Amino acid sequence: MTKHRIVILGGGFGGVYTAQALEKLLRGDTSVEVSLVSSENYFTFHPMLPEVISGEIGLTDTVSPLHRMVPQTRLYIREIESIDCARKVVRLQPGFVPRADELPYDQLVVALGNVTDFRGMPGLYEHAKPFKNLADALSLRNHLIRVFDEVANIHDPELRSELLTFVVAGGGFSGVEVCAELNDFVRKLARERRICDPAELKVVLLHSGERILDRELPQSLGEYAQKLLAKRGVEIRLKTRLATASPSAAVLKDGERIPCRTLVSTVPSAPHPLVAALPLSQDKGRLRTDPHLRLLESDHVWAIGDCALIPLPSGGFAPPTAQHATREAVVLAHNLLANRRGQSLKPFTFEGLGKLGSLGRRRAVAEMFSKVRLSGMPAWLAWRTIYWSKLPGFSRKLKVGASWFLDLLLPAETVQLKTDTGSSLTQLHYEPGDVVFHEGDLGDAFYMLLEGEAQVFGSQSPDPSQPIATLRAGEFFGEMAVLKRQARAATVKAKTAITLLALRQQDFQSLMAHVPELRTSIERVMERRQHQNSSGELPIPK
Amino acid sequence: MTKHRIVILGGGFGGVYTAQALEKLLRGDTSVEVSLVSSENYFTFHPMLPEVISGEIGLTDTVSPLHRMVPQTRLYIREIESIDCARKVVRLQPGFVPRADELPYDQLVVALGNVTDFRGMPGLYEHAKPFKNLADALSLRNHLIRVFDEVANIHDPELRSELLTFVVAGGGFSGVEVCAELNDFVRKLARERRICDPAELKVVLLHSGERILDRELPQSLGEYAQKLLAKRGVEIRLKTRLATASPSAAVLKDGERIPCRTLVSTVPSAPHPLVAALPLSQDKGRLRTDPHLRLLESDHVWAIGDCALIPLPSGGFAPPTAQHATREAVVLAHNLLANRRGQSLKPFTFEGLGKLGSLGRRRAVAEMFSKVRLSGMPAWLAWRTIYWSKLPGFSRKLKVGASWFLDLLLPAETVQLKTDTGSSLTQLHYEPGDVVFHEGDLGDAFYMLLEGEAQVFGSQSPDPSQPIATLRAGEFFGEMAVLKRQARAATVKAKTAITLLALRQQDFQSLMAHVPELRTSIERVMERRQHQNSSGELPIPK
Repeated sequence: MTKHRIVILGGGFGGVYTAQALEKLLRGDTSVEVSLVSSENYFTFHPMLPEVISGEIGLTDTVSPLHRMVPQTRLYIREIESIDCARKVVRLQPGFVPRADELPYDQLVVALGNVTDFRGMPGLYEHAKPFKNLADALSLRNHLIRVFDEVANIHDPELRSELLTFVVAGGGFSGVEVCAELNDFVRKLARERRICDPAELKVVLLHSGERILDRELPQSLGEYAQKLLAKRGVEIRLKTRLATASPSAAVLKDGERIPCRTLVSTVPSAPHPLVAALPLSQDKGRLRTDPHLRLLESDHVWAIGDCALIPLPSGGFAPPTAQHATREAVVLAHNLLANRRGQSLKPFTFEGLGKLGSLGRRRAVAEMFSKVRLSGMPAWLAWRTIYWSKLPGFSRKLKVGASWFLDLLLPAETVQLKTDTGSSLTQLHYEPGDVVFHEGDLGDAFYMLLEGEAQVFGSQSPDPSQPIATLRAGEFFGEMAVLKRQARAATVKAKTAITLLALRQQDFQSLMAHVPELRTSIERVMERRQHQNSSGELPIPK
Repeated sequence: MTKHRIVILGGGFGGVYTAQALEKLLRGDTSVEVSLVSSENYFTFHPMLPEVISGEIGLTDTVSPLHRMVPQTRLYIREIESIDCARKVVRLQPGFVPRADELPYDQLVVALGNVTDFRGMPGLYEHAKPFKNLADALSLRNHLIRVFDEVANIHDPELRSELLTFVVAGGGFSGVEVCAELNDFVRKLARERRICDPAELKVVLLHSGERILDRELPQSLGEYAQKLLAKRGVEIRLKTRLATASPSAAVLKDGERIPCRTLVSTVPSAPHPLVAALPLSQDKGRLRTDPHLRLLESDHVWAIGDCALIPLPSGGFAPPTAQHATREAVVLAHNLLANRRGQSLKPFTFEGLGKLGSLGRRRAVAEMFSKVRLSGMPAWLAWRTIYWSKLPGFSRKLKVGASWFLDLLLPAETVQLKTDTGSSLTQLHYEPGDVVFHEGDLGDAFYMLLEGEAQVFGSQSPDPSQPIATLRAGEFFGEMAVLKRQARAATVKAKTAITLLALRQQDFQSLMAHVPELRTSIERVMERRQHQNSSGELPIPK
C-alpha cells in the first residue's frame, strides 16, 4: 500500500502549525506521510525578533528546532527550486551533493509567506537592510555594534553624523517595533560607552501615512505610540517614502537626502518568488483560496498564512498575522484529511482577538476583542504574557523567561558575532555627485560599472574641478590600487546614478593570479584606457 | 604636554590582561594613553570554546565585550595592515571608509598569539576546519547540525557513511577537548533525532605521538583520557598524521583514506603573519624576549603570550597557556611603566600551577602543583570551578552559571544559525580519482582549474571508461550547466591532485551578465574547446 503524501512548503507559523495539527489528528495512523520543506532548520517566533536587536533576549531564544516541534514529520531543510503542479512534484535545490531531489505529493500546502524584495528599486536593493528573519536581526545588531566601535575613533564631524543617523522605513507594526528597539539599543550603547553625546544620535522613522500604525490601530493608540517614540528621541517623518539610497544616504521621494549609514526598510513585502511563479489566480502575490483554504483552481493544493488570500464570513480577507495563521493551520489539517476521506470540509471563520505592538522599554499598545484599548505598561505586560504563553515548548519558555530576568540585572550584551565572512561580490548604488572613493584612500576593492556614468578627478590635473575622464557602463576601474596595494591616484564620482559591482581586494588578487584569461582581459582594458587618455600623463583612475 | 603612547596589538589573554593591569597601575594618571588593537570587539575565553559546539553554554557566553573589560583603554576594532618599527607606527586596515589609519607608539606590545595556518598544505587549506576562535566554533556547530538535517533524507550508504564520519586531527589539549565535545554532540543528536543508528557514527581522533596528551600530561592521565574517549566511541589513531584532504575524505601520511565530510584540525599552529614579518629574532614564529618580556633587539617593543618566547629561571620557556599569559601581563604592565620612568624591571618567574583538560560529559583530567593528579568527575569539578572563577566579570559568570544549570534540565540546542552567507569564491582540492561532479548532477558552480589535470568522461561516448578530454591548469569548466541551469552533461574526475576555484552559480551569472569583457573571454575559451574536440560530437564538459 502506498502512503498518501502531504507536502507542506514553508517553515513559518502556517506550515509548522499545520504539520503539528496533522500529527495530532494522525496519531498512530501511518497511511499518511507528512513532509515539510523549510530553508532553515528552525521555526522563528517572529513577534519577538525585534528584541534580538537589543539583545534583551538571547540570540537564539526566538527560534525553535523544527524536528522537536514536529517530530513525526519528514523534514527537508532545503531551498525549493520549483513547484511542478502538472506532474505533482516539488523540486528541491541540492544539499551536500549536487543532485536534484524531487518530492512527489498527493496534496500540497503552500505556506511560503512573503519576502522583503527590493528588486527593481535601485539603491534600496543594494543598501537597505531588510528585517524579516533571524539572520536579518543578527546582521542589523552586528552592524549597529560595529558603528559604535568605529565612531569611537572618528573625528570627522560629517562622517560621525552619517554613522550616528539611523533610518527605519515603514510605520506599520514591524517598522515601529524595529525602530523602538533600535532606538533603545543605540541610546543604551551611547550612554554606556560614552563615545558620543546622546544629542549626536538621530533615529528617523519614515511612514507614508498620516500617522504611524494608521492601518493597524485606532487613532488614539497610534497617537500614543507616536508621542512615546518622539519623547524617546525618534524623529517621525509622515507622508513620505524612500525613493532610493546610496552607501551614505537615504533619499526621500521629494528629493531630500538624509545622510546615514544605517537604513532599515520593512517595506515593501513582495510575493514569494515561487508563489508568484505559480499559474494560479493571485491578488498582489497572495493565492486566492475558497473559505476552506483550498485554491480555487485545484482540489489538492491549499494555501495558508501570509501568501494566501482567504475570504472571511464577515466579508474581507484574513489578515497576515500569526494568530490567524495558527488558526488556519488547525482548519487546514482537518480539511486535508477530510478531503482524502471524501468527508465535508470546514470553513475558516476566525475573526481575530486583537492587535499588539511593542514599543520597547516596558511600553506597548494593544487593542483586544475589538473593544479593550490598552497602552503603556499594562499593554506591555499583556504583550509579554500573551506572546510568552505562545512560545513553542517548555524549554523555550524557560530560556526566554531567564533572559528577561537576567536582562533586568545585567547590562546590554554588546558582543558582535562576526560569523558573516561577507560576500566577495557586492553590488553598490550611488546617486549623482556621490564619491565612490577619494584620491589617497586605500584600495580595498576593484569595481565594475554596471549602469550609469562616473567621472574621474585628479588633484594634480590642471583644473582639479574638471573631470579628467568619464567612465561608462561595462568599464572596470580601481584595479591599480588594488593590485599594488597603494593609495587611490584619483577621485571617482557618480555623474548620473550608478550601479557598481565591487570585488574585494583579496578575491580580485586571487582571480588575477590564477586565471590567465581574466588577467589578459583586464590588462587589455588597462592598455586601452591608457591609450584613450592620449598624453598618458593624466592620472587614470587607479 | 604630549602623552606617552602605549599600543597593544591583540585582544587575547596577553593583550587584554596587559591593558587591564595598566589601567589598575595608572588609575588617575592621564599622562599615558593606552590603545589596544583587536580584530574582534570581544575577548574570547578560549578554555570554554569547545563547549560552544555542543551548545552546553550559550553561543556568546564565552566572549566578553572589550570596552567593558578595559573601559579606560582606547580600542581599535580593526585588522592590522603592518607594523613599521623604524617609524614607530602601526598601520590599520580601513574601517567604514577606505582611509588608512596610523597609530604612532612610544612603546609597543605584541600579543598577537598564533594562527592555525594550512597554507602550503594542499587539501587541508581547502577542506580542514580550524578551531581557533568563536567563528570557528559556531561554524563547526552549524556544519554538524546541517549534516544531521541532510542525513535524514539520504539513503545512499556510501554518502551516509561519509556524512556520519567525523575526523579530528591533533591529540593535544585542544584536539582532545574538541573531539570529546564533538563526539558527545553527534551522539546526542543521533539519539534524539533517531535519523541514524548510533553504530553508523564514526568519530576518529588522529595523533602523531604514542598516546594522546603525551606532551601535556603524565602517562597515567593520558591513558585515562584515552580509555575514556574509546569507551565513549572515539576511535583513536596514534602515530599518524594528516597528509591531505578532499571534499569527501581525509588522507593520512601512509596513504590511507578515511571517507568523511567533517575534518577538524587543531594543528599546526603557525606564527601570526604580522609577527613572522617582523625583522626581529624569532624561534618558530615566537619572538625572543629577555626575562623582562622585552625583545632582545629593542628597548621599547615587548612581546607576551603565545607569540613570545620567554625564558624561565628554571631553564626552558614559558608555555603558551592562558595562566602564563595572564601572569606575564601583570609583569609587563609594571615593566612598561618602569621603563618609561627609568626604574628597574621585574623578571617573569611564574612556573605554572597545573594543567587541566576537559573530556566532556562530566569528566576531565588535571595535574596540579606538579603533584596532585586528578581524573574523572573530581577533575571535571576542578575544571569547572577554576575556569568559572576566571571568567571575566560578574555578568559572564552569572550567564554561564545559568546556562550550565539549564543544560541539566533541557535538551541540547540544535538550532543552526545561518548567518554565514558563504563566500562566492571557494578553493577546492581533490585527490587523484576523486569526482568533481557526476553526469546528471545539478550545475551549482562554475570551476577554474588552478593546478593539476582533470579528465572528462561521458556515458554516451563509445567507451565510457575512456576520458573524452583532459583539462589542464588555467582552463575553465562547468560553464554550460551553470549558465543554462541544466544537468551536467559529463563527469569530471581528478587525474592528478587538483586545485579548483569554484564560483557559485548566482555570482557567475551576475558576472557574465554585467561584464562584457569576462563574457567575451569565457566565450573564447568555449569556442576553442569546441574546436579542440574536433568532431564536435563528443560531449564537452558542461
